[in-house]
Amino acid sequence: MIPNRPRYAARLNAFKVRGGSVAEMILGVGQVGGLSAADLNYPDHFAAHDPATLTGLLSDQGLVLNGLAMRYYTESGFKLGAFTHPDRAVRQAAIDLTKRGIDACSAMGGSQMTLWMGQDGFDYSFQADYGRMWDDTIAAMVEVADHNPAIDIAVEYKPNEPRAHALMPDMATTLLALEEVDRPNTGVTLDFAHMLYAGEMPAKAAMLAARRSRILGLHLNDGYGKRDDGLMAGSVHPVQTVELLVAMARAGYAGVIYFDTFPDLSGLDPVEEARTNIRLTDRLVDLAARLADDPALEAAQARQDAAAATRLVMAALFGA
Amino acid sequence: MIPNRPRYAARLNAFKVRGGSVAEMILGVGQVGGLSAADLNYPDHFAAHDPATLTGLLSDQGLVLNGLAMRYYTESGFKLGAFTHPDRAVRQAAIDLTKRGIDACSAMGGSQMTLWMGQDGFDYSFQADYGRMWDDTIAAMVEVADHNPAIDIAVEYKPNEPRAHALMPDMATTLLALEEVDRPNTGVTLDFAHMLYAGEMPAKAAMLAARRSRILGLHLNDGYGKRDDGLMAGSVHPVQTVELLVAMARAGYAGVIYFDTFPDLSGLDPVEEARTNIRLTDRLVDLAARLADDPALEAAQARQDAAAATRLVMAALFGA
Amino acid sequence: MIPNRPRYAARLNAFKVRGGSVAEMILGVGQVGGLSAADLNYPDHFAAHDPATLTGLLSDQGLVLNGLAMRYYTESGFKLGAFTHPDRAVRQAAIDLTKRGIDACSAMGGSQMTLWMGQDGFDYSFQADYGRMWDDTIAAMVEVADHNPAIDIAVEYKPNEPRAHALMPDMATTLLALEEVDRPNTGVTLDFAHMLYAGEMPAKAAMLAARRSRILGLHLNDGYGKRDDGLMAGSVHPVQTVELLVAMARAGYAGVIYFDTFPDLSGLDPVEEARTNIRLTDRLVDLAARLADDPALEAAQARQDAAAATRLVMAALFGA
Amino acid sequence: MIPNRPRYAARLNAFKVRGGSVAEMILGVGQVGGLSAADLNYPDHFAAHDPATLTGLLSDQGLVLNGLAMRYYTESGFKLGAFTHPDRAVRQAAIDLTKRGIDACSAMGGSQMTLWMGQDGFDYSFQADYGRMWDDTIAAMVEVADHNPAIDIAVEYKPNEPRAHALMPDMATTLLALEEVDRPNTGVTLDFAHMLYAGEMPAKAAMLAARRSRILGLHLNDGYGKRDDGLMAGSVHPVQTVELLVAMARAGYAGVIYFDTFPDLSGLDPVEEARTNIRLTDRLVDLAARLADDPALEAAQARQDAAAATRLVMAALFGA
Repeated sequence: MIPNRPRYAARLNAFKVRGGSVAEMILGVGQVGGLSAADLNYPDHFAAHDPATLTGLLSDQGLVLNGLAMRYYTESGFKLGAFTHPDRAVRQAAIDLTKRGIDACSAMGGSQMTLWMGQDGFDYSFQADYGRMWDDTIAAMVEVADHNPAIDIAVEYKPNEPRAHALMPDMATTLLALEEVDRPNTGVTLDFAHMLYAGEMPAKAAMLAARRSRILGLHLNDGYGKRDDGLMAGSVHPVQTVELLVAMARAGYAGVIYFDTFPDLSGLDPVEEARTNIRLTDRLVDLAARLADDPALEAAQARQDAAAATRLVMAALFGA
Repeated sequence: MIPNRPRYAARLNAFKVRGGSVAEMILGVGQVGGLSAADLNYPDHFAAHDPATLTGLLSDQGLVLNGLAMRYYTESGFKLGAFTHPDRAVRQAAIDLTKRGIDACSAMGGSQMTLWMGQDGFDYSFQADYGRMWDDTIAAMVEVADHNPAIDIAVEYKPNEPRAHALMPDMATTLLALEEVDRPNTGVTLDFAHMLYAGEMPAKAAMLAARRSRILGLHLNDGYGKRDDGLMAGSVHPVQTVELLVAMARAGYAGVIYFDTFPDLSGLDPVEEARTNIRLTDRLVDLAARLADDPALEAAQARQDAAAATRLVMAALFGA
Repeated sequence: MIPNRPRYAARLNAFKVRGGSVAEMILGVGQVGGLSAADLNYPDHFAAHDPATLTGLLSDQGLVLNGLAMRYYTESGFKLGAFTHPDRAVRQAAIDLTKRGIDACSAMGGSQMTLWMGQDGFDYSFQADYGRMWDDTIAAMVEVADHNPAIDIAVEYKPNEPRAHALMPDMATTLLALEEVDRPNTGVTLDFAHMLYAGEMPAKAAMLAARRSRILGLHLNDGYGKRDDGLMAGSVHPVQTVELLVAMARAGYAGVIYFDTFPDLSGLDPVEEARTNIRLTDRLVDLAARLADDPALEAAQARQDAAAATRLVMAALFGA
Repeated sequence: MIPNRPRYAARLNAFKVRGGSVAEMILGVGQVGGLSAADLNYPDHFAAHDPATLTGLLSDQGLVLNGLAMRYYTESGFKLGAFTHPDRAVRQAAIDLTKRGIDACSAMGGSQMTLWMGQDGFDYSFQADYGRMWDDTIAAMVEVADHNPAIDIAVEYKPNEPRAHALMPDMATTLLALEEVDRPNTGVTLDFAHMLYAGEMPAKAAMLAARRSRILGLHLNDGYGKRDDGLMAGSVHPVQTVELLVAMARAGYAGVIYFDTFPDLSGLDPVEEARTNIRLTDRLVDLAARLADDPALEAAQARQDAAAATRLVMAALFGA
């Protein structure tokens, strides 16, 4: 059975339209109602405030820290890569920046650092030695994971953008890497839209993650499977979202659901958009709870009867 | 307002698993209950029976003929193209075959011939003179349309497969061609899964079709936007399906909804699969009827407020 | 036959890494050697300099103005759309901004304004009334084209990004719109990478453009067909690039080749990257000139013989 | 350094147009000149001939057996899956069929069985229990690998088709599975077009395969990265093909290059098409041999200098 209503978080930068400062963005998150956690980006969100001040800003809005997320692109030195940069000194700078981020996370009482290694990829054939990029990334992740074993390190994969090809584009590649890293405080963060345009069926990727590593985070959003559209959760693929939620429940995931959406790109008001995310997801979480224990659905799946399974799911979803 | 429950048809060949003959397939369609129309492929479905016999087989199952659909690939001479074939004699053979199909359609009291020019495309750069392919296709379509002005000619576009690139891959290209053809008995058949993997938003493509030509047919099905998956209608993109149904209603479409799905590829029983198509589509058609006249939705769209519009649609669809 | 070596231009903003000012970026372009034209973005590149000063900066580097390109996203009021914005006042602001851009272009002696209506699209089903967006866009383009009939208006289409779906995503849709606009000073700018991820074969799209409108610009670059990768021209699809160059030559295109690439995203030096663009394109232009008049190739195409055509092209390209 | 000219094989069924029997198809392969190996499909190619007869037919044409490839779809009982079928008896039938194929391979003196588990996937969310499908597949592969440790078992992955999602869609998922199988006589067969539309950079995937498993086969062909186009090797992505050949050489691959192309779908003559495959590949293999040891290229890669690397590669490829 799916546990109680999950805690929700939202992308802080989506609230930039309401005022550019971190304090103003946190205020915006507080206005939504229904959001109870927040992630901060390192180092950008720490440029003007120290960890103690940020903790205060969050708690003023009734928010707990979900975790920190590294942003390597904010420093132009990482354009060619962070952990994969050809220059050892730049790689070490990326590792050291990550360690400082982990320290900030720890200072705020957080327990998780998310790594999206967005610059770590390649654009051209013959541009790089893939084996060396792989080795350097494994070594960097080991060093980062060992820095503070009390902080979990979650890898958020993405097929491309800004680079034409990411080194860590999909679930299975990430799991191969994490196995080589071989540290208990590592795992995966699932991003629904990334999964779609990686060509994955999200619930299947979650099965692999639960089987071979740890699921440390869940980013809900939606899109059309061709790019990182950042649409509201459940707005395009409600059935695939419910299936993922069932898989997460079965994997024992009890963490935060983070809405990684881009109202700013669509000209949407972030408060109204976040409220819509919550409404849709509440409904889909309820539905997932019901389907997770449905013996008729289990029986249909046991014989791979898609007609029966689809009728059951659609009846529960929209009364068909 | 959306008119009464639409008539439904299903892909005859999906029932091949129940027996290979046309008579057995029509019997399978009859067993579904809820299907009231059928399309026949020309020439394959006419290999063993004449039009009068086929009419009898259909009416025995309470089915009316929706129309005929050309299948050029069944004759190996068209592998390199039908209307685009470099050899004038082969092009003329394709045109003549189509005319015989139109005659058969007329003999059965049908009113519509669907053209899917699946072989008319190219695989390689420098393989063909695109301008000549275009000219030959326009000329062939003119000749076909003029053969019997009482029979509508509907073009069903598709991005690729079997050819790597189709000459007529998407709505807008088809509309450019139809304008050059310039015959009143021509128009477009919309196939939902083709639209998805052409990168189109189906309701937007329907707007263009209604504006610039005539919508002559609607193939419902679903998929993941990367290929012609042939899944059950509404099973992946229920919201986009409803939006298309609203657009069709506004465009005055009162024709058959044809389920162009591939239960045979998935190992599904075609009767159960067709029943599921009907159940899901009945529900989405009802929903479309309600949304088509909703002033609150109209107001949200007038200000392009995606949060409000999505909440309205999702509340109607699944009570969020 | 393909005429003399084309004039080349490069994306000014690619040189931002060498110093953020427009003057510094123009200096960077001048350092490349081999670039003889430049495009300026309006209004961003005019923020600190008036047209006369910009003309001077260009001529100091031996550069002629190729044209101007509108950038609506630089003003946050256009996030929900420029010509498609639901608010009439915002639409008019976009039109007026474009007219001022046309005036600036004229003041600099330029002859062409490129429109990339990047914000004009939608993210969600039911977000907008597509017909109204279409009408508003046609009306805006008419007003813009009529502002100064001596300046050509070139539409540069793109499938998506920043919006999930663009109103003008591909060649054929653009041609339908331009036909409704019905002004002689309008046409299309082709962007190779946009064409690839629109699912088009570039040379075929060029055929349609030449047949139904005017080809006003050519942006060369490359990518993997999934997004706007911005890679160096010919680096991934040399054969498709050559085929497009042959089609452009046959269509009589004698304009500038603009390298719309993103060395900044890959951490590449823009000067070295631009030099590589020139070297590769020089070679492919030569090859196109040879193939454009090859009777053996023409004969292979006349019978759609892909094996023979591919052998001829590959022998010319790389001696196979 | 890349060793001598590789042995080439071609897809036997591509020659069906020259006569449907296995004997006639082998005769067609022999007419090409330059093909020295062949793969046979099991069970289809063994329907009319026993292993000894087939060995004779091959040697009459100067062909050695490269290996066998399983084809589960030829028996309709596997439509819902072979190793993933929900019915244990059907799964066992698939395993037993594979064992008989391995026996036939061994009887012909072959050393390798390729598994393309094309039916093993799913079409709908909630259709199947992914964990159970995974477990059943691992168990089946173990049983198959243990049947005859002298025969290598090569998995050929593919993103989709005929199923909407394959259980084994890409390199990394395949490597995760092979690690669980944990048998020394297992590995991967690389198919270039499959890699492209899995979103992979082929040479990077080869790096992972060499690092974590064994590369047992190489299928060359080409396409546009959206589906399994089956075009001639090097005809679209010559640079990515060369990069893969360099990676294969570095990984010590000395096996056959198998042209997995579909001239039959394009209406091409298979003999002329195969000859074109050989010509293009000969040239690209030569180029790969030169580039594999180029210190300037190695230096460019060491600093991830895409401009320098691209200039070097393009100069070698086409003299730019």
